[in-house]
Amino acid sequence: MKQSELFTKTRRENPTDEVSRNAQLLIRAGFIHKEMAGVYEFLPLGLRVLRKIEAIIREEMDRIGGREVFLSALQNPEMWEATNRWSDDAVDNWFKTHLKNGTEVGLGFTHEEPITAIMKQHISSYRDLPVYSYQIQTKFRNEERAKSGIMRGREFLMKDLYSFNENEADLDAFYERCAEAYTTIFERVGIGAITFKTFASGGIFSKYSHEFQALSDAGEDTIYLSREKNIAVNEEVYTDEVLSDLGLDRAALEKKTSIEVGNIFKLGTRFSEALGLFYMDQSGRAKPVVMGSYGIGPTRLMGTIVETLCDDRGIVWPKSVAPFRAHLLSLGEDRVALLWYEKLAHLGIDVLFDDREGSAGEKFADSDLIGIPYRIVLSKRSLQHGGAEVKERSKSEATMCSFEEVVNLLKS
Amino acid sequence: MKQSELFTKTRRENPTDEVSRNAQLLIRAGFIHKEMAGVYEFLPLGLRVLRKIEAIIREEMDRIGGREVFLSALQNPEMWEATNRWSDDAVDNWFKTHLKNGTEVGLGFTHEEPITAIMKQHISSYRDLPVYSYQIQTKFRNEERAKSGIMRGREFLMKDLYSFNENEADLDAFYERCAEAYTTIFERVGIGAITFKTFASGGIFSKYSHEFQALSDAGEDTIYLSREKNIAVNEEVYTDEVLSDLGLDRAALEKKTSIEVGNIFKLGTRFSEALGLFYMDQSGRAKPVVMGSYGIGPTRLMGTIVETLCDDRGIVWPKSVAPFRAHLLSLGEDRVALLWYEKLAHLGIDVLFDDREGSAGEKFADSDLIGIPYRIVLSKRSLQHGGAEVKERSKSEATMCSFEEVVNLLKS
Repeated sequence: MKQSELFTKTRRENPTDEVSRNAQLLIRAGFIHKEMAGVYEFLPLGLRVLRKIEAIIREEMDRIGGREVFLSALQNPEMWEATNRWSDDAVDNWFKTHLKNGTEVGLGFTHEEPITAIMKQHISSYRDLPVYSYQIQTKFRNEERAKSGIMRGREFLMKDLYSFNENEADLDAFYERCAEAYTTIFERVGIGAITFKTFASGGIFSKYSHEFQALSDAGEDTIYLSREKNIAVNEEVYTDEVLSDLGLDRAALEKKTSIEVGNIFKLGTRFSEALGLFYMDQSGRAKPVVMGSYGIGPTRLMGTIVETLCDDRGIVWPKSVAPFRAHLLSLGEDRVALLWYEKLAHLGIDVLFDDREGSAGEKFADSDLIGIPYRIVLSKRSLQHGGAEVKERSKSEATMCSFEEVVNLLKS
Repeated sequence: MKQSELFTKTRRENPTDEVSRNAQLLIRAGFIHKEMAGVYEFLPLGLRVLRKIEAIIREEMDRIGGREVFLSALQNPEMWEATNRWSDDAVDNWFKTHLKNGTEVGLGFTHEEPITAIMKQHISSYRDLPVYSYQIQTKFRNEERAKSGIMRGREFLMKDLYSFNENEADLDAFYERCAEAYTTIFERVGIGAITFKTFASGGIFSKYSHEFQALSDAGEDTIYLSREKNIAVNEEVYTDEVLSDLGLDRAALEKKTSIEVGNIFKLGTRFSEALGLFYMDQSGRAKPVVMGSYGIGPTRLMGTIVETLCDDRGIVWPKSVAPFRAHLLSLGEDRVALLWYEKLAHLGIDVLFDDREGSAGEKFADSDLIGIPYRIVLSKRSLQHGGAEVKERSKSEATMCSFEEVVNLLKS
């Protein structure tokens, strides 16, 4: 895409009403727009990143047998009353509204209830199990404070998968597969090295749930990390009993601030019993379906990537989720640059071409702010050296490359 | 996909609480689930159709220069007060809710206001124009009655594009390009032959807007159609003056019931003036940006396709939006059928394989109900004839085809 055809502009100054680094950078670079605290809009660059994150999550959920659905935001109170989650005393972050006839309805902050109700139409026998179903959909949570940019939204995207099994052994096996898929997702989006599977509080049906926590001072969570064992413990369950359970030595743990980028939870039969989701087992007895739920927020993940990989010049996107593969800058060599752009596009390489008027300094600053993995500069000097000056966003040294070398680099 | 791995089941009986044909069929065939009147959830088959419709719309919007964004549902009242659209007297279908601090916020029923506010950050000069930006996003409309299935939702998907131009001539030119793109979209999704560009009431800035109306008894609109001129007039502007304007003869028009599947509207400077979206022209004078808006509802379009193409046995999907290319049915020939399925999948052909136990009658009835374009039956008899019995969903005659012939047919 030509940058002249991208309607967004960059800004030099941080927005005055943002304290989070992710929102500051994403707004300055033209990826998002702030509608109100905790509510952001995704502009073309931001949407490209979001779609790439979603595609990675979708691939890994499909790989473990997930079937994608798309549930509604508007929620019928009945189901939520049956599970004791309708009252504002039980759940303090509902957004609620009214139909014309006065009926109060909610805006889904999660979807255990409706998906359980759906499954009542489709699961009746052990032959119908297991079912794994997920969606990538907008959640609404009426947060008291929302100061963490796109990491804690009042409205945000969530990938939520729900598992439906015959028994706990099958749930346990899927739970582990999903945990592995989550590890793969965090590796693929570029935060694998700083993200740790973390023991957190469970529910009625399991002693623990698990979170995936990415180390970052911008986080709201505190964890105790064992690098040796590659696991962590959330502060909420940081007790002698738990440490003993896990064979962890208090002295060997690091206290860290972190961002919860995923969580997996064994629900057992809490929702299936409350809502009447039963199946006939092989001997003809009715049993409640055993459930689990598994969440990752694509928007929060995008914010976390910005927070944890940025530098003082701007965003540093991993190649897997960058809005473009390369940023082509023309410094007074518009004719050659256009030719390069067209040839790269023809080869299927996604390039943002800065074809605007402007000084080298402005173009370099914008390129660093936007954070595309490869910067390719065409100038009189570079052409004298037989090509373009190529620099990775995350590195400091640049090299001269011919067109063929650039193609090989970008295709690799 | 193997049908045994698709969790949805078909139903023989219509749901008792649905009067619309589209919702009846889509629920019976397992494409959607009803959450409440006017609120539906998309199950795997339904989501596949929706994504194909969206992809066609996206391609055509990108082709005319649209830049995709993703705006929020939650709406800040300020902007809407500035355009006199916040009050329930002015707009009677708002859903409104409250933040924890008591601030009332809305759920977007359209997005002229927020996108105009966004453009204030990015448009300041004639050099920044034109901008064409669109999204495919969930809208909320508090409808008094919602009895038309997914054709009139309280929550539904909308593709809304907004155009930003320097002057009316540029708006007029883009408006025509967008109208052509809409015609292409309706052709591509299979309702081109029954969909007509229709003159409807305009606003302050133009005498007419245009709707795209698909002929159907399930519609809520009345139009007067000139097949000869390939245009129609909405009842709301069916006056002598308008007919004379358009050179239409009352006697030559057919009165028809129809579904509004798209609409395009010249907004002029109504929103840019109210919200302060100005640009500097070439002579340095500040001028309001000239706008237009262009809507298509992917969910309504899906409902319209079902309504207008179904028969008494079920849904008839056009190839372009069908959830799968072919439906492979095994009648007691599971080993051969599995082999065919795997070979077709390997060739990249999207096949739903009915590998379930069940009678031929049940499988045929399900296949007709689900409405995939090609039905491929493998039975003892078909194998004796050297292959499979192939029938198009929209036709009555079947033919015997070898595997190679099937591949050629499905790839064509």
